[in-house]
Amino acid sequence: MTGLLETPYGTQDFLPSEAATKRAVEKKIAELFASFGYEEVVTPTMEYLETLTTSSGRAIEPHLFKMFDRNNRTLALRHEMTTPIARMAVSRLKDSPLPLKLSYVANVFRFRQNQPGRQCEFYQAGVELLGISNAFADAEIVALAAQALQVAGLRDFKICLGQVEFAAGLTDNLSPEIQSEIKSALERHDLVALENLPVDESLKELPKLRGGREILSAAEKLANNPRSKRALDNLTEIYRLLEIYGVADKIYFDLGLIRDFEYYTGMVFEAYAAGVGYSLAGGGRYDHMLKDFGVACPATGFALGIERILDARKFQNVTDKSSTKKFYLSYAAGCEDAAIQKATELRASGEVVEISLTPQTQAEAQTCAEKFFAELIYVE
Amino acid sequence: MTGLLETPYGTQDFLPSEAATKRAVEKKIAELFASFGYEEVVTPTMEYLETLTTSSGRAIEPHLFKMFDRNNRTLALRHEMTTPIARMAVSRLKDSPLPLKLSYVANVFRFRQNQPGRQCEFYQAGVELLGISNAFADAEIVALAAQALQVAGLRDFKICLGQVEFAAGLTDNLSPEIQSEIKSALERHDLVALENLPVDESLKELPKLRGGREILSAAEKLANNPRSKRALDNLTEIYRLLEIYGVADKIYFDLGLIRDFEYYTGMVFEAYAAGVGYSLAGGGRYDHMLKDFGVACPATGFALGIERILDARKFQNVTDKSSTKKFYLSYAAGCEDAAIQKATELRASGEVVEISLTPQTQAEAQTCAEKFFAELIYVE
Repeated sequence: MTGLLETPYGTQDFLPSEAATKRAVEKKIAELFASFGYEEVVTPTMEYLETLTTSSGRAIEPHLFKMFDRNNRTLALRHEMTTPIARMAVSRLKDSPLPLKLSYVANVFRFRQNQPGRQCEFYQAGVELLGISNAFADAEIVALAAQALQVAGLRDFKICLGQVEFAAGLTDNLSPEIQSEIKSALERHDLVALENLPVDESLKELPKLRGGREILSAAEKLANNPRSKRALDNLTEIYRLLEIYGVADKIYFDLGLIRDFEYYTGMVFEAYAAGVGYSLAGGGRYDHMLKDFGVACPATGFALGIERILDARKFQNVTDKSSTKKFYLSYAAGCEDAAIQKATELRASGEVVEISLTPQTQAEAQTCAEKFFAELIYVE
Repeated sequence: MTGLLETPYGTQDFLPSEAATKRAVEKKIAELFASFGYEEVVTPTMEYLETLTTSSGRAIEPHLFKMFDRNNRTLALRHEMTTPIARMAVSRLKDSPLPLKLSYVANVFRFRQNQPGRQCEFYQAGVELLGISNAFADAEIVALAAQALQVAGLRDFKICLGQVEFAAGLTDNLSPEIQSEIKSALERHDLVALENLPVDESLKELPKLRGGREILSAAEKLANNPRSKRALDNLTEIYRLLEIYGVADKIYFDLGLIRDFEYYTGMVFEAYAAGVGYSLAGGGRYDHMLKDFGVACPATGFALGIERILDARKFQNVTDKSSTKKFYLSYAAGCEDAAIQKATELRASGEVVEISLTPQTQAEAQTCAEKFFAELIYVE
């Protein structure tokens, strides 16, 4: 019998109070996205396998939940929303004026070891900005991520900001094998592995380029090529705009930051909060993905992890003043009709009314009202 | 390349305007549910296969999307929400005071032939009322379904109301084989098959017991046993309460109504709207399901089909007055900073502001504002 009552490995129920907090946080974030002109879209929970592997690469396949459709084609549950939205934008929104600003709140799935902050099903809210490749667009994206964490109630967080082109410029003339070893070492923050690679000392400095505004000057000394220099100019301009957005105090540069999807081509970032050991949000520029679907179009965006934000809220003791007043409406035997009429009236004027489903004495009704934390109305 | 751009068989994208309507309808319904004291819950998209087959029977298995988890156990995408909520209620909410009133808005999945009104992934909103077995609870459920269709904008719909115990009483002393043939004929509305069965003439009248209040009197003449009589008393009391709720004019009795899940034990109903050939909502009483999960507890509830409601809204020409005003904020070269400041101010006061991502001349800005149906603010 026990098996019957379990949720599947890596998944969870949201009981009423948890579901209410989740919905409230999602609603605030969705309203913020809308206030910037982003329009919500909904895509299927599953995609054809080849759609998901097109941009994320074959390496994603072991991390996907797979199944078959009625025509024996392989489907997979979406592991993120950027790829489905790119597919949709290319196939359905071709004739929309650019830039296209899209948003979503959706569940995504990863076939993996379940651990804190890493479930097999989890919720993301995010935006994609398609059609513009400049620092102004990137700054809007980073500012929006910072403001989303703020409207979700978090105060104590930082945003680690990097630029994949900076490292790419430094490694341009190395062999693909060495490049891939460097990337892997950076991803794992494995400084020893990096130290042991047969590369220039300047590259080994990369993971140390972490900190405030001063990091940009330190990085300039390493930038011995045009590609890395352009990356730094881009970061400098993004930072200037973030000052105007009023979120520059949240920025922490990290020029060794490499995100775990293959598709990033410029600015990348991750958000962290005190007390939570995994990123709350992540994103960046991905100018080549839409080309994989047949239409060249630059793009930038991010996703927030809803459960991770809920974890951080708990750690930071964020509470919402729940203002929902609730009436418990009960009645003496024979007064059913009057009770329904009264409940209907109250609901029509916007009140929340739970009506007793059986007649009660006033004392019984009082006990129930207290149990439900509600104000009693008794009809007799 | 084409395959890459398709959504999987039986699934669809919701583009911005469709997604906005979907969200608006779901929001109105969720607010209605909350006003009756129902609390929202969220369950995983997948369940262990045995959880879903426990109450719906093995016959559901071919209609499930199946896959494996990391421990090689068989999972299936949920095909409805009543079973997951029963599982959750039994395992997680044991100590909550009864009755328990839960609601959801969720996507569900069926492995089947795709056709209008029958997708492989679709959205449902619904409620479950656990812990009370009386006509008062059933009437609340039917009234709530009717009001949900009303807040979704529909005016022209009817609710077919039946009681599975009425037919059960009439067939009590027949063999299980004949009972199952009768049930199958009623499900398929196959009057010829019913006519050819070796049963009492009164049973063959069953499918004709459809219509207004007068059907209850006609049915009384057939009710030659206590079980059928109790079923009619129950329907009579539900109808009386629905008059007080002000939705009795939507009720159309159908004593041959058999819903397609095995678990119904009392009142059952389906909602239909003009111009849409499939039910918009369905539900009923299921007093035995929770016992399958280890705790005896009566229950009643319903689910609305969101896409079907959207179809009916289209047919009935329901439109929402969209009151969202949008500003398009553009700026001359060099005025980026002032533009961001202005946009931030306006958003803080609740406005929706799409900011241009590149400097524009005033004429270019005007063209863009028109393309986005927005009011122009130009900073120079």
